[in-house]
Amino acid sequence: MSWQPVPGVRLAAASAGLYAGERLDLAVLELAPGTESAGVFTTNRFCAAPVEVAREHLEAASPRLLLINAGCANAGLGEQGLEDTRLCCEAAAQAFSVEPHEILPFSTGVIGQRLDVGKIQAQMPQLQATLSAEGWLEASQAILTTDTRSKLEGRQVKGAGKNLHVTGMAKGAGMICPDMATMLAFVATDLAVDAAVLEQVLERALEHSFHAITVEGDTSTNDACILLATGASGVKLADLEDSEVEAWEQAVFEVCETLAKAIVRDAEGATRFITIEVEQAATPEQAQAVARAVAHSPLVKTAAFAGDPNWGRILAAVGRSVGELSRMDQVGIRLDDVQVVTGGAVAENYREEQGGMVMARDEFTIRVDLGLGESQVRLYTSDLSYDYVKINAEYRT
Amino acid sequence: MSWQPVPGVRLAAASAGLYAGERLDLAVLELAPGTESAGVFTTNRFCAAPVEVAREHLEAASPRLLLINAGCANAGLGEQGLEDTRLCCEAAAQAFSVEPHEILPFSTGVIGQRLDVGKIQAQMPQLQATLSAEGWLEASQAILTTDTRSKLEGRQVKGAGKNLHVTGMAKGAGMICPDMATMLAFVATDLAVDAAVLEQVLERALEHSFHAITVEGDTSTNDACILLATGASGVKLADLEDSEVEAWEQAVFEVCETLAKAIVRDAEGATRFITIEVEQAATPEQAQAVARAVAHSPLVKTAAFAGDPNWGRILAAVGRSVGELSRMDQVGIRLDDVQVVTGGAVAENYREEQGGMVMARDEFTIRVDLGLGESQVRLYTSDLSYDYVKINAEYRT
Repeated sequence: MSWQPVPGVRLAAASAGLYAGERLDLAVLELAPGTESAGVFTTNRFCAAPVEVAREHLEAASPRLLLINAGCANAGLGEQGLEDTRLCCEAAAQAFSVEPHEILPFSTGVIGQRLDVGKIQAQMPQLQATLSAEGWLEASQAILTTDTRSKLEGRQVKGAGKNLHVTGMAKGAGMICPDMATMLAFVATDLAVDAAVLEQVLERALEHSFHAITVEGDTSTNDACILLATGASGVKLADLEDSEVEAWEQAVFEVCETLAKAIVRDAEGATRFITIEVEQAATPEQAQAVARAVAHSPLVKTAAFAGDPNWGRILAAVGRSVGELSRMDQVGIRLDDVQVVTGGAVAENYREEQGGMVMARDEFTIRVDLGLGESQVRLYTSDLSYDYVKINAEYRT
Repeated sequence: MSWQPVPGVRLAAASAGLYAGERLDLAVLELAPGTESAGVFTTNRFCAAPVEVAREHLEAASPRLLLINAGCANAGLGEQGLEDTRLCCEAAAQAFSVEPHEILPFSTGVIGQRLDVGKIQAQMPQLQATLSAEGWLEASQAILTTDTRSKLEGRQVKGAGKNLHVTGMAKGAGMICPDMATMLAFVATDLAVDAAVLEQVLERALEHSFHAITVEGDTSTNDACILLATGASGVKLADLEDSEVEAWEQAVFEVCETLAKAIVRDAEGATRFITIEVEQAATPEQAQAVARAVAHSPLVKTAAFAGDPNWGRILAAVGRSVGELSRMDQVGIRLDDVQVVTGGAVAENYREEQGGMVMARDEFTIRVDLGLGESQVRLYTSDLSYDYVKINAEYRT
C-alpha cells in the first residue's frame, strides 16, 4: 500500500453511526472544478437507488463531490430509496456549495434496510470542515463493510516535466463477480483528460482488474468504479509524449489491478489467492465460461481451502462448462508448473505429492489448456472456507 | 422409506475393500431375461469410463446385470479407465453367466484414482451366491459415498388384477446439479414395458425429480438414472386400463421424486430443505436461469443456514440472472406465505420477524414472481453450512 495525494482531490471521513459500533462509515471526495470522470456500474437489474442517481448525475454534469456511505446499501426500497438518496445529495450540496446533480452518491452494506438520512445529513458540516488532500486513508477505511483491511494504492509517473499522480481506493469482500466485481472503487489522477478518453482508459483497465475477479459469483446491486481526472497538475493528456501516455495508462492499470487483487486477497474468509488461466479456448466466451465454472465451483474452492489437489473436481468443472460439442482429449491441467492432466486424462508421471505441494501454497495458478483454439482469459479468485460461511451466516446478527 | 421386492430383480452387496474401513461398497442387480430398460446419463463432457461403457452396452443389448461400485469414480483416467471397467464386466459376465455387453457398469467416488479391478473381481462368486429379491436395502447402502443414509422407495399399484411394483434406490450427496442431478438412481418395475415407452416415462419422471434438484451446481462426471421393466408380473402395459397406466406412471414419478428429494435432504452438510419456485417468467429458460441463480447463490445458501431472512440476497440473485432487458418493477418475493417483496421493492407491511419465522423452519419455499409471462419452474436445494465445507475439504483425507 503506497500512495500519494492527488492534487485536485480533498477527502474527509466521519462516523455517522450507521453501524452499531464506533467506526468510520461515511466519506466524501471533493473534486476541483473541471474534473472529468468516467464510471462503470453494476449490471444487476436490481441496481440500488444510489446507482440510479449516480448514473443520472454523471450524465447531467461533471461531478464535484462523491458521497459514500457503508452500513446500508439502500437497495430494494423502490421510490423511498431514491428519495432518501436525493435528500442526502441535497444536504451535501448545501454544505459543500455545489449543485445536487454535481454529487455522485454511493452506498454499500445490507440490502433492504432504509438509509438513515438524518445521521448522514448531521455529518455534513464536520466533513466539510475537515477536508484534506491527505484524507485518502481515512476515506478508504470508511467505505469498508466486511473487508478486514483498507485497499489503497498509488503510482507516480513523469509527464511533460511534471509529476503526475494516480491514486485509488476500493472495497470488496462479498458479492464479488465480474461485471462489476468491484463493489466500489475510486481512482483519481491529476492529469487533465477528456471524459471520452477517460472512459476508454477505464474500460481497458477494468478488463484485467475489476472485471477479472470473482469470489462467489454473486453480482452486487451496488457496484461502481469511477475514474477521475482533476487536471490539477496543469498537464493535459495532449501535452504528453507517447511513452509518457503509456506510462500514465500503465499506472492506472496497475492501481486498478492491485486494488482488484487486494479485494480477492481480502475476500470473506479467504485463505488462498488463486489465479485461473484458461488457454487455447475456441472462443472468448468459452474461455470465460470455463474459467468461471472452475472459479465458482464450491468443490474446487473447498479443495483449495484444504490444500487438497483434487484435480478431478477441476476436470469436472471444465467438462460441464465447455459446451456440448467440444472434444476433451486435448485438455491439459497444470497446478503452477506441475502437469496434472494431459490429453484429457491424468498425466503419466504425475504424483499426488507434487499437486499437494502447489495447493499448500498461499497463492497458486490453475491453468487449463483446452487445445481447441486461441482464446484465453485470466481470473482471480479465492477459496471457500469455514469463515466464508461464518461471515455470511452471521452478517446481519 | 417403504419398499417391496420387484419380481424379476435379485440383488446382492459386498464389501470389496474399496474404502479404508469396512463397509459395503459393491452391488449387483440381476435382471430377468427380457427386461427392458431406459437410461439417462451425465451431460458432463468429461464422463467417466463406466458411463461410456454403460452407454455403449445399453445400445447393444438389453441389460441382464447392473454392477455398481462406490469408493472410486474411475473418471479422468483415459484408456486405462475404459480397460479397467471392461475387465470388471468380463469377470461379472463369467460369474453370472451373461455376456459382457449385457452388463451396465457404474462407479461413484473419487475422480482420478484407478479402480482396483482385482478387489472387484474377487467378490464375484460371493455376490452371485447371495443374490436375493430382498437385497434392496444392502444394495442401496453399498452405492453410497458421503451420503449419511440410504435412499430406497417403493410403490405398489393394481393392474390387470395383479399387484405391480415400482421400487428404486439412489445415492447423491455431492456434485448435484440438474442434467443429471442424480449421481446414481436405479428404479425397477415388474410391468412389461417396451424400451421406447420406458424412455418417455423416464424423461417425464426426471423433469420433476432428478432434473429438479441442485446442491452446488457441480454436475458430476458419473451421473446415471436407469429405469428397468422386468415384466415378471406377467402383465403388459397394453393389458392395463387407462386409469391403471396412470397409476403406474404416477408410482414411477413418486418414487423418483421421493428419491430426488431424499438426495437434497441428505446433501453434504444440509440443514434445510429449500424449494425454489419461479413463476410468471417470460420464457422457460428465464425461469430456469433465475431459479438456479437463487439456488446456487452462496450468499442465499449461507443466509438459509443461519435462518436469516436476508431477502436482499435473493433479490440480488434475481437481478443478475433475469436478463438485460427485463423490467424489475413487477417482481414479488415470498417466503412461504409471507410477502416480502412486491412491485420490485420491500412490501409495506413486511416485518423482519415474519421472514425470520419462515427461515427458521427446516423446510421452506422461496417463491419469485417475475410478472413477465407465464413460464414457471420448481427446484429443490439445500443450504450451505460449515459441514458442507468440512465434508468437502476433508473428502479425501
